[in-house]
Amino acid sequence: MDKILILHGPNLNLLGRRETAVYGTLSYDDLNDRLIAVGKELDQEIRIQQSNHEGELIDALHDSSQWASGVILNPGGYTHTSIALRDAVSALEIPVIEVHMSNIFAREKFRHRSFISPVAAGTIAGFGWQSYVLGIQALVRIKMS
Amino acid sequence: MDKILILHGPNLNLLGRRETAVYGTLSYDDLNDRLIAVGKELDQEIRIQQSNHEGELIDALHDSSQWASGVILNPGGYTHTSIALRDAVSALEIPVIEVHMSNIFAREKFRHRSFISPVAAGTIAGFGWQSYVLGIQALVRIKMS
Amino acid sequence: MDKILILHGPNLNLLGRRETAVYGTLSYDDLNDRLIAVGKELDQEIRIQQSNHEGELIDALHDSSQWASGVILNPGGYTHTSIALRDAVSALEIPVIEVHMSNIFAREKFRHRSFISPVAAGTIAGFGWQSYVLGIQALVRIKMS
Amino acid sequence: MDKILILHGPNLNLLGRRETAVYGTLSYDDLNDRLIAVGKELDQEIRIQQSNHEGELIDALHDSSQWASGVILNPGGYTHTSIALRDAVSALEIPVIEVHMSNIFAREKFRHRSFISPVAAGTIAGFGWQSYVLGIQALVRIKMS
Amino acid sequence: MDKILILHGPNLNLLGRRETAVYGTLSYDDLNDRLIAVGKELDQEIRIQQSNHEGELIDALHDSSQWASGVILNPGGYTHTSIALRDAVSALEIPVIEVHMSNIFAREKFRHRSFISPVAAGTIAGFGWQSYVLGIQALVRIKMS
Amino acid sequence: MDKILILHGPNLNLLGRRETAVYGTLSYDDLNDRLIAVGKELDQEIRIQQSNHEGELIDALHDSSQWASGVILNPGGYTHTSIALRDAVSALEIPVIEVHMSNIFAREKFRHRSFISPVAAGTIAGFGWQSYVLGIQALVRIKMS
Amino acid sequence: MDKILILHGPNLNLLGRRETAVYGTLSYDDLNDRLIAVGKELDQEIRIQQSNHEGELIDALHDSSQWASGVILNPGGYTHTSIALRDAVSALEIPVIEVHMSNIFAREKFRHRSFISPVAAGTIAGFGWQSYVLGIQALVRIKMS
Amino acid sequence: MDKILILHGPNLNLLGRRETAVYGTLSYDDLNDRLIAVGKELDQEIRIQQSNHEGELIDALHDSSQWASGVILNPGGYTHTSIALRDAVSALEIPVIEVHMSNIFAREKFRHRSFISPVAAGTIAGFGWQSYVLGIQALVRIKMS
Amino acid sequence: MDKILILHGPNLNLLGRRETAVYGTLSYDDLNDRLIAVGKELDQEIRIQQSNHEGELIDALHDSSQWASGVILNPGGYTHTSIALRDAVSALEIPVIEVHMSNIFAREKFRHRSFISPVAAGTIAGFGWQSYVLGIQALVRIKMS
Amino acid sequence: MDKILILHGPNLNLLGRRETAVYGTLSYDDLNDRLIAVGKELDQEIRIQQSNHEGELIDALHDSSQWASGVILNPGGYTHTSIALRDAVSALEIPVIEVHMSNIFAREKFRHRSFISPVAAGTIAGFGWQSYVLGIQALVRIKMS
Amino acid sequence: MDKILILHGPNLNLLGRRETAVYGTLSYDDLNDRLIAVGKELDQEIRIQQSNHEGELIDALHDSSQWASGVILNPGGYTHTSIALRDAVSALEIPVIEVHMSNIFAREKFRHRSFISPVAAGTIAGFGWQSYVLGIQALVRIKMS
Amino acid sequence: MDKILILHGPNLNLLGRRETAVYGTLSYDDLNDRLIAVGKELDQEIRIQQSNHEGELIDALHDSSQWASGVILNPGGYTHTSIALRDAVSALEIPVIEVHMSNIFAREKFRHRSFISPVAAGTIAGFGWQSYVLGIQALVRIKMS
Repeated sequence: MDKILILHGPNLNLLGRRETAVYGTLSYDDLNDRLIAVGKELDQEIRIQQSNHEGELIDALHDSSQWASGVILNPGGYTHTSIALRDAVSALEIPVIEVHMSNIFAREKFRHRSFISPVAAGTIAGFGWQSYVLGIQALVRIKMS
Repeated sequence: MDKILILHGPNLNLLGRRETAVYGTLSYDDLNDRLIAVGKELDQEIRIQQSNHEGELIDALHDSSQWASGVILNPGGYTHTSIALRDAVSALEIPVIEVHMSNIFAREKFRHRSFISPVAAGTIAGFGWQSYVLGIQALVRIKMS
Repeated sequence: MDKILILHGPNLNLLGRRETAVYGTLSYDDLNDRLIAVGKELDQEIRIQQSNHEGELIDALHDSSQWASGVILNPGGYTHTSIALRDAVSALEIPVIEVHMSNIFAREKFRHRSFISPVAAGTIAGFGWQSYVLGIQALVRIKMS
Repeated sequence: MDKILILHGPNLNLLGRRETAVYGTLSYDDLNDRLIAVGKELDQEIRIQQSNHEGELIDALHDSSQWASGVILNPGGYTHTSIALRDAVSALEIPVIEVHMSNIFAREKFRHRSFISPVAAGTIAGFGWQSYVLGIQALVRIKMS
Repeated sequence: MDKILILHGPNLNLLGRRETAVYGTLSYDDLNDRLIAVGKELDQEIRIQQSNHEGELIDALHDSSQWASGVILNPGGYTHTSIALRDAVSALEIPVIEVHMSNIFAREKFRHRSFISPVAAGTIAGFGWQSYVLGIQALVRIKMS
Repeated sequence: MDKILILHGPNLNLLGRRETAVYGTLSYDDLNDRLIAVGKELDQEIRIQQSNHEGELIDALHDSSQWASGVILNPGGYTHTSIALRDAVSALEIPVIEVHMSNIFAREKFRHRSFISPVAAGTIAGFGWQSYVLGIQALVRIKMS
Repeated sequence: MDKILILHGPNLNLLGRRETAVYGTLSYDDLNDRLIAVGKELDQEIRIQQSNHEGELIDALHDSSQWASGVILNPGGYTHTSIALRDAVSALEIPVIEVHMSNIFAREKFRHRSFISPVAAGTIAGFGWQSYVLGIQALVRIKMS
Repeated sequence: MDKILILHGPNLNLLGRRETAVYGTLSYDDLNDRLIAVGKELDQEIRIQQSNHEGELIDALHDSSQWASGVILNPGGYTHTSIALRDAVSALEIPVIEVHMSNIFAREKFRHRSFISPVAAGTIAGFGWQSYVLGIQALVRIKMS
Repeated sequence: MDKILILHGPNLNLLGRRETAVYGTLSYDDLNDRLIAVGKELDQEIRIQQSNHEGELIDALHDSSQWASGVILNPGGYTHTSIALRDAVSALEIPVIEVHMSNIFAREKFRHRSFISPVAAGTIAGFGWQSYVLGIQALVRIKMS
Repeated sequence: MDKILILHGPNLNLLGRRETAVYGTLSYDDLNDRLIAVGKELDQEIRIQQSNHEGELIDALHDSSQWASGVILNPGGYTHTSIALRDAVSALEIPVIEVHMSNIFAREKFRHRSFISPVAAGTIAGFGWQSYVLGIQALVRIKMS
Repeated sequence: MDKILILHGPNLNLLGRRETAVYGTLSYDDLNDRLIAVGKELDQEIRIQQSNHEGELIDALHDSSQWASGVILNPGGYTHTSIALRDAVSALEIPVIEVHMSNIFAREKFRHRSFISPVAAGTIAGFGWQSYVLGIQALVRIKMS
Repeated sequence: MDKILILHGPNLNLLGRRETAVYGTLSYDDLNDRLIAVGKELDQEIRIQQSNHEGELIDALHDSSQWASGVILNPGGYTHTSIALRDAVSALEIPVIEVHMSNIFAREKFRHRSFISPVAAGTIAGFGWQSYVLGIQALVRIKMS
């Protein structure tokens, strides 16, 4: 059974508790439960990490290359500012899929540019928590093809 | 059975015949066959249109509101230049999902900005022809939730 | 009796059916009826065309030079992107008045620049459907002076 | 009988005496006479003020809210530089219509941006002194609708 | 007892009568009464001036150097456009504190840049009418240190 | 005998009838006659198409790959705005030469950038109708080398 | 007794030891002692944290929502680069006041833009260590009003 | 004897009292005395006006056309922000020479652009109070040639 | 027999010895031989100069006005940086045709702007050494028309 | 014997294992061994730290001021985004030399700007792992001079 | 008797022969004769040099420091492009006055920025050949003060 | 014994005589003596050239390919403006190392961009005259590896 890392960036631990108009009312824990369930259906072991620290996200990516077959990355606010995170994605040999719950292109201008997208295997944005589900499906499809 | 419009923008009719390094060797007809098959699995009737004319794409969007439950739109080169197309998407009440086969963020700078994304229900880019498949899956999920 | 072409750009055929908060509830057909009536009062024959196709708008402008004494043009989304349309306006010897129903300057930044304005006989924006009426009045005044 | 303030910005007092290629040969006094006459036809009392002082224009706008039913404002050179004037327009509850005699979009680049347009009830530009007449007509129409 | 000039820029005379969603319902006169009271508590004589004229604000600043120990300046719309006002602040030897009632950084982009801030003793923004109170407190603290 | 497509973009059908100061007095039909004659001298069959429709230009390019050995393209106003047209040129395996009658670099700033040039086999601009003739000569030379 | 978090960003631990021309000679520990004393006078319990880690600042903000009634945040160098920190401020329900000791608007251009200001309850800059004191006073006033 | 208007812009009344490092120690009155003396030598009657009000400077320019043979204008801070002043200069038929005491090109970036220069008869900057003297000499030379 | 100056800019003396992937393997001397031969066919005497010195290129242009009927100029790297060279072209009464061997629009962004194009009689780019040949043909055609 | 801190930024721990085309095949450990050896030759004790955490790099710089005579800093991706790191370098009294293995100026545009360079003692880029060696040599030379 | 270098930049040798609408009909030699005469009146020995070579202008500036008391420099097209020339001016201890015959601020945008102005003793532009005369007068006045 | 060209750009001949605060007091001749000595230690023959002429620097680079094993280039002011020089470096097969004595990144903004860096073998900046020494060491190391 393949293993997938779902890596949540900064502030995603607050999911369901804050700004529910933007991010929905699904809690962080419930989201993860659902993703694990979706993983099972697709015969994938889902492992989940979250950090508000840019450096820990980089560490997690480095580490994932030892055990995961792919990564679903929601870089949160670091999407638009972190070249270090981009370099970590770029250095990884397993596919990294960038997901965003909100439609980042419909928000403030500084959220329109992603440093991650050009080095990701693909990008999915705007489908709420379903963005993660689509990310898992995409990863399975990439591996199959 | 719900109906979905898959709307291909300019030059996509050449698929598989040109620039295969970027777009793959799958032919335009084979792509459509696969999408119809995926639709069937998900109990969706897939209807397909393609045009190189900005105006025809707008007409098709207007028309789709009469019969479709959702649209998968690959706006091709109009992605980055057409406010008229954006306004047509914005005026539509059924969900429109923007898909791109290539990773537009890894190409020329003028392809990094999409006029469509801010008014789309969501955006999927970079997964080759699988971007369309993910788009169908996303549409089904949106309608369920 | 002079003839005036009223040329509606992309998506204006949807008037009154979509985004009524921005464009009002007056339907496309009712708008045209009113404009014809206003024309009659001012002794002008009003002819109306609409297209979502940039090329058809250009064709219509070329054609109008054969029979019209002036044009009221609402270029819609092509306002901000079409140099081809601008060149067609610029090539016309009869006056072309640019009208917009909404206040384009109060909307997204990419709507603030018009390629048409510098070559139009004048610009009228923000008065809802009355922008067209003012356009007809302006055309009559231009021809008188 | 409703009262309308016509507020002329800087340098408009020179009308007809300078740069007649751009602004025409109609003198400032003759313009005002014509506007008063047009007002009478439309059953509107026209009151006219002119100032080269940004502050006096703001004062006049503040004052107009006590007695006028609408304002026709030609902000002249302050169009492109005065946020204070914009704030005064924005604070006004009666409609303010921005007019320009010349086609500002066909002149120097720094004249293409108006701080006033986004907060005006509408904008009319390029019709020479007729821009004011159209402004009065627009104001009457706004009040009727 | 030290004397402080509180200098209100354009449109602030309308306080409490317009745009109360942005500026609150406290009237201009009540604001001044409160500031005078706060001044008394802190043993400061508060003198108040308001003008919509850029030039009068400059004159007032020049004049204040004769009698005031400091200035609280709310430059209103001139904040973002007036180099002349900046030069007047820069020329003053007594401290000038820039205050804004609204959070100018959360408003339109053209309000994000202040010509005054780089030459002010300090800047306080976003606290509603309390911004002025904090300004008085800041002035007292500057003079003490 | 090789076949060459000469593809005229928007508004070029007006040649000789409008803006003769910029484009000369040679009529559209006379231009084409001359080009056909030049072709004959160089043993090339010249076929001519013109459209004001972006989509038709793209269609014509797609079609030309079936029968032509090269294309002379004057994209007119689409030069500066059409990524879809660029993609069509880029997808073509036969050489496409971009020509302009006027010196686009000496005109408005928005005409200085061509989306077509980077993917064209070469660019010729500023020689009036002779630009087309030079284009034919260039095409013949490319094929010989 | 209400509790306030004072959160110092990167390099502020060096206060009084480095660049005293810009930041003064007051040491980091003495600053904190003074702030605690000011808090006491205003019946506020002051708790102090400092970190050079963007992630730890975000963690601290998340944590503060459990116990604090408000936050005084000096984001240091992260002011101008951290969208993740901004999102954390934005997600917080208690007021966050942004303070800067130096006049950031009088320094390098890249310090003129704050990602934090638009989502802060207010901003205070340029008063040296007194900026923190004014921040505490502002927080007390916000809570009272 | 010809008459020349020397028109000082905002803050120049402070000359010699403030920022002497930039503007020198010569007082405003002494400067004017010297200019009158230079005028006498060159057989010119010098009349001097100063205002901190943009509108008054415009009024003065309008008025000067009645009696002066030329103007020496130091627009101070309005140099870089006033299109209204520019329009007044542009409307004037007598020559207007722009002078600056300081080297505006060696100061802040926002001082590098002058709205006045393109419509002035010539520009002189950087020679301290001698800039005015050179301005008078230039005016005499222009009138002679 | 007319005389034509072919003026090669910096680094073109290296032709065929360096970066043959970009510029081809034809040597500098062979290129010139071919151009002289082409000239003969067209009854033109070709004279050739090359310099790496901006000033020498300007001198050569000045000098050419004494004897040449036209100039073919490849300004090399000075294309994008030399206003002095542009002024020399602009001052010349004989036609100057700008040629480039490579497609400068497909290279680095700083090569997309030419200071020479707006003042050249025409521009030819992208045809390798044939660009020069087309330049000679263009010159002959210009002189005939 | 002087002590030097060599501080490696994010992703440098992957050296030799990833993107060897850019960074070479020398492993991270081998690099450090070589640097220690070079240090010995120059009578310098080399201490090495690496972190993917911006905050840890800042901490390390703060700490180094207690024991090191100089720092060789490769800030990796933080080079282009971290003002906090810049402030830490700026606050340090010992010299900090910025090194890059790759030629950052030949890579993506966002890598062309370094926030560190303006406050570093000097910058060395493009020599592969030898950049570090040159950095050590530079540090020794700075200390000698 | 003091010596002054008048240094003419590129293309100025063509004076009076080309573009007389911009530069007047006074020939280069006549200009120099007049300047020598003006010098004599003011007891200054005028020496004149001209070059189209950036390097020769720099050489001349270096050399002038050996014998001249000041320089009048018309940098021509190098004004806007030459940092090397700027550095030469900046290194000079004698005053350098920048002059332009035309009003560079009323010409193309790329002529609005001067690299020389910030390091010149002063700038004079727009007075035709009289700009040089004013430059000499300015130099004499600088030396006297 | 290998030969190295040290190529000094414009104004470097003034070293030690001007702007010693920036460039130090070491004279140009002493610098060269030291570099020759360093070369000897490293078994390299150092040849030195200097020119203020862009074209001569290009000529020298072309010539060096005949005899040198590497070049140390200090392009001075041409660093930021010369594409012609860049092309000459790019065409060279021997390594060219770019050196700067001052920290160009800490100076005016127009000095932050180097046209040379992207095509140099490496860049060294900020170490005063030692930058040259490090350059020689770097060249030796490049040749050894």
